[in-house]
Amino acid sequence: MSTSEPTSLLVALDLLGVFVFAVSGALVAVRKGLDVFGVLVLAGVTGLGGGIVRDLLIGASPPAALTDWRYLVAPVLAGLLTFRFHPAVGRRERSVNVLDAFGLGLFCVTGALKALDYDLAVLAAALIGLVTAIGGGMLRDVLASRVPVVFRGELYAIPALAGAAVVVAGTRADLPTLLVAFTGGALCTGWRLLAIWRHWQAPVATGPASV
Amino acid sequence: MSTSEPTSLLVALDLLGVFVFAVSGALVAVRKGLDVFGVLVLAGVTGLGGGIVRDLLIGASPPAALTDWRYLVAPVLAGLLTFRFHPAVGRRERSVNVLDAFGLGLFCVTGALKALDYDLAVLAAALIGLVTAIGGGMLRDVLASRVPVVFRGELYAIPALAGAAVVVAGTRADLPTLLVAFTGGALCTGWRLLAIWRHWQAPVATGPASV
Amino acid sequence: MSTSEPTSLLVALDLLGVFVFAVSGALVAVRKGLDVFGVLVLAGVTGLGGGIVRDLLIGASPPAALTDWRYLVAPVLAGLLTFRFHPAVGRRERSVNVLDAFGLGLFCVTGALKALDYDLAVLAAALIGLVTAIGGGMLRDVLASRVPVVFRGELYAIPALAGAAVVVAGTRADLPTLLVAFTGGALCTGWRLLAIWRHWQAPVATGPASV
Repeated sequence: MSTSEPTSLLVALDLLGVFVFAVSGALVAVRKGLDVFGVLVLAGVTGLGGGIVRDLLIGASPPAALTDWRYLVAPVLAGLLTFRFHPAVGRRERSVNVLDAFGLGLFCVTGALKALDYDLAVLAAALIGLVTAIGGGMLRDVLASRVPVVFRGELYAIPALAGAAVVVAGTRADLPTLLVAFTGGALCTGWRLLAIWRHWQAPVATGPASV
Repeated sequence: MSTSEPTSLLVALDLLGVFVFAVSGALVAVRKGLDVFGVLVLAGVTGLGGGIVRDLLIGASPPAALTDWRYLVAPVLAGLLTFRFHPAVGRRERSVNVLDAFGLGLFCVTGALKALDYDLAVLAAALIGLVTAIGGGMLRDVLASRVPVVFRGELYAIPALAGAAVVVAGTRADLPTLLVAFTGGALCTGWRLLAIWRHWQAPVATGPASV
Repeated sequence: MSTSEPTSLLVALDLLGVFVFAVSGALVAVRKGLDVFGVLVLAGVTGLGGGIVRDLLIGASPPAALTDWRYLVAPVLAGLLTFRFHPAVGRRERSVNVLDAFGLGLFCVTGALKALDYDLAVLAAALIGLVTAIGGGMLRDVLASRVPVVFRGELYAIPALAGAAVVVAGTRADLPTLLVAFTGGALCTGWRLLAIWRHWQAPVATGPASV
């Protein structure tokens, strides 16, 4: 079991990340014409799904997101606000994407740290960090019946994997947790922001499409 | 671990709920033109999926649905009967929906009670009740590659959440389990039946569709 | 916990199965026009998904696929090779399907054996064998936003269930593990190869389509 005592700052950042992810899920739901409950569920799945899948994979049940009421209030709030004010939120999607990059950096770090707390091996912990960061968005797209956007050329997953790898490598080298967490998160978020700004894309297979 | 001894009546009701949910899954599969195995899998996923997700989330592995053969026979029977007699079953879809409302009420109650047995907090237990009731149908729709119908304006999830909330609140107030179970189930099923009868819909976001 | 010591041969076969399944996932991703990361994720999900779902269901966390680096290298290699050489791989799809039949036979056996190791009941162990064999392909199709091909008339799941059933029945009859493993795997793979060769299909519901 984990023995780390999360600080209030970490919890506040984590809740902010959940909130931002949940807004992106709620926007997808509103645009699909879903009802208010569909908006709330997609908000919750997007905000909390990555952490819940992480906890299932490392054997931490029940998932933390289900046992702390603040983690349930954040996506409900995000869903209701987006449901009510979706035209204004939609116009600010670029700002949502920027905040989302911070959520990405945060989640790849916290996911990798929690996996290390549960004594997972190096490679597994980096992958768990990746799943924590991108799992919620993938579940959102599966429930919205579309191919996950993270597969569609957006440079999104590679920065998250890089950030998680930095955290795992730094922790194994016995560097201070705060330093590796900040470095990993900054690498992920910075890379993602550059990708948004410069429209960087992940490569697609070339040559004649095989049938 | 759970210490409650389920009565024969509860098991019989539970199996009936699994059977009815499985019929709805098999109907979707037949209409999608799936083969007999696809019909059986969608029947099984719809009937048992909510309970399996519940057991994964609360850490009760292996899931109860996999260890009791009666829970496997019920959806297989439902799938084979629907596969063979689907025109007749399809014409009675309104009756299927009415029986489904009873399954919904039953599953939100049993899901919330099992979560409380596993010492989950109030909010988490109510959500687990909701997931138990609607999870099977959501998995059915994901495997059938369509947006879950529970998101599409049908008033379906709110009654299930309300029923689970009554069970959790009543149990915490030390009321008799039988009383809170019956009240929660009746609230959920009654509300859902009214929604079917009066064509109540959940609200959809208004205003210009944001892009 | 499991006490069986997997031999090097079994691990080598298992890795080959993961590799072949991963190639089929990567091919789907390339044809959907996904980027290189989407190709790698679909390769990983298809190759490892069945085993991960099996481990979640039987309560073996963290899943074995996450803790052994060789199980991560196999799908990454398969994904990169398919990404680079997809026209050549696509032209050899029939060979991929033949290798896939061997993977199917292998996974239904190893899945059922692991479930028995975890003291699951007869019926549950056979189902776990089935899920191990077909779960990866189903997750691949859900993430690619299409109805699982295993539902679409291909005779694929029934051989896997038959192979797993042979393993479970033979083990309960105290026959030597090697014998039942080989018989179950040969039944599954042979049946599947015959189905490919003779274009056998699973039956679809007849009569007027119910609406």
